[in-house]
Amino acid sequence: MLTINPKKVSIPVLHSYLLGAVAPRPIAFASTIDKEGNPNLAPFSFFNVFSANPPIAVFSPARSGRTGQTKHTYDNIKEIPEVVINMVNYDMVQQTSLASTEYPKGVNEFTKAGFTPLESEMVKPFRVKESPAQLECKVKQVIELGENGGAGNLIICEIVLMHISEKVLDANKQIDPNKIDLVARLGGNWYSRTNGNALFEVAKPLMNLGIGIDQIPAYIRNSNVLTGNNLGQLGNVEKVPTTIEVATFKNSGAINEAFEIFGKKGSKLEDHLHHLAKGLLENGKVEEAWKVLLSIGN
Amino acid sequence: MLTINPKKVSIPVLHSYLLGAVAPRPIAFASTIDKEGNPNLAPFSFFNVFSANPPIAVFSPARSGRTGQTKHTYDNIKEIPEVVINMVNYDMVQQTSLASTEYPKGVNEFTKAGFTPLESEMVKPFRVKESPAQLECKVKQVIELGENGGAGNLIICEIVLMHISEKVLDANKQIDPNKIDLVARLGGNWYSRTNGNALFEVAKPLMNLGIGIDQIPAYIRNSNVLTGNNLGQLGNVEKVPTTIEVATFKNSGAINEAFEIFGKKGSKLEDHLHHLAKGLLENGKVEEAWKVLLSIGN
Repeated sequence: MLTINPKKVSIPVLHSYLLGAVAPRPIAFASTIDKEGNPNLAPFSFFNVFSANPPIAVFSPARSGRTGQTKHTYDNIKEIPEVVINMVNYDMVQQTSLASTEYPKGVNEFTKAGFTPLESEMVKPFRVKESPAQLECKVKQVIELGENGGAGNLIICEIVLMHISEKVLDANKQIDPNKIDLVARLGGNWYSRTNGNALFEVAKPLMNLGIGIDQIPAYIRNSNVLTGNNLGQLGNVEKVPTTIEVATFKNSGAINEAFEIFGKKGSKLEDHLHHLAKGLLENGKVEEAWKVLLSIGN
Repeated sequence: MLTINPKKVSIPVLHSYLLGAVAPRPIAFASTIDKEGNPNLAPFSFFNVFSANPPIAVFSPARSGRTGQTKHTYDNIKEIPEVVINMVNYDMVQQTSLASTEYPKGVNEFTKAGFTPLESEMVKPFRVKESPAQLECKVKQVIELGENGGAGNLIICEIVLMHISEKVLDANKQIDPNKIDLVARLGGNWYSRTNGNALFEVAKPLMNLGIGIDQIPAYIRNSNVLTGNNLGQLGNVEKVPTTIEVATFKNSGAINEAFEIFGKKGSKLEDHLHHLAKGLLENGKVEEAWKVLLSIGN
């Protein structure tokens, strides 16, 4: 392991490891105004939602690591404690990046980055028309985490109104991850896209308690074939198939071919059946995988 | 647009839209202990890093939406204000999900989910050996955002020691996003993987200021071919090629073929050159794209 004591490395080095390790980070494209009404638009990846009741999002416009200066977004929020957090999809990522340029105060990033301002309903800052989800927020609290370069500022926001583009909804009016096509920040110049093959599903743990990996018989748990992910699926069942269910499964002929080739016991049979179970698990067939694995012991 | 007023929908409905819209969310696999020393392990996607100086991460073990009860992680932190935040990669995602099961207090999720506890150096809770990046943290402050079901609790943590697996580092000892292979949460049962084709790079804005999309000539800015992403790249240059540079480019014969086919002006030529520029931009050749686009005006 590479061990890093934050007090013993420079801030840029620490910053780089933090951004590489804590990822992917969702992007808040924050729209604010100053007390003269000049709009500002800038993206921040120190951001997430933290509560549904009340609905709270937090983001951090940190002090510049180079100059120690606060960002215009922070300055504006101290003047007008309101913000629209616009989510960023793939189609707008280059323009969003352009808006992160450190233009002088008063420059309108809507114009510079080519976005369309839309009036908000409950706050003064504009929404970004091109964004697929726009969160109108009132700032409840600002917590300054430090006074030097790289210091974050927690902007704790209550979401007072959400706008979601109809284009990103499925037939049940739920957000379709492929359609919303959000992007996120990683370390360096890296971003990630959240669609297509990058997406996968994991069934939520049961309301009834899964048996746990500790309750899986040792000859399965210590398999050289099954991975931690496979064991996680096996441990998430509420109960394993009964002896009778396994016997019925064997009698159905489902694994006759394996018995014919490898005999009724032995390490070759075991290895084959573990591979068979692994394939079933990767297709979400957890109960069948359990029956295959228990066929040896029965 | 679908507009949602948080005060006018049920908490589960609001929760579902928040999780679909604010994504992908990095996962804090939080290891804590109670005052008797019993370990607990649970994943939270209301989480991010917020500051490098001091190094601050925040996560939220929210009150159960069903029962209003606090989580064991929260209870433990009130007893022992320390936590190890373990990052979650693809190889451990099923076991991590299993650890989110609501086992009774005192059940050790290291055992249930099959993870290996490793002693920490600066805090009492264990690290998860299988995790590629482990952040030892002291809890600085807990902010309770509400008292009812779905209420978040901001756990504001100072990172006192980071451990990063050598296996996820590149030749320069930096974190390689493909090697660390982190996963994130979206809405519903969706997760995303952050590797391979999901990754892309966007050059950071210049230290010198990009000209901005408003400075791109209208016949380019209003193109039917170029996308917002293309315009974002074009607006990120400090200056456009000079008339002489464009003339030299034309004389080099780089677009002679286009002139031969489509003539020296007209909408067909323009359309062709915009497609040519678009291809160059998608390959990161911004200066060449500018020269192609300006060849018409010259």
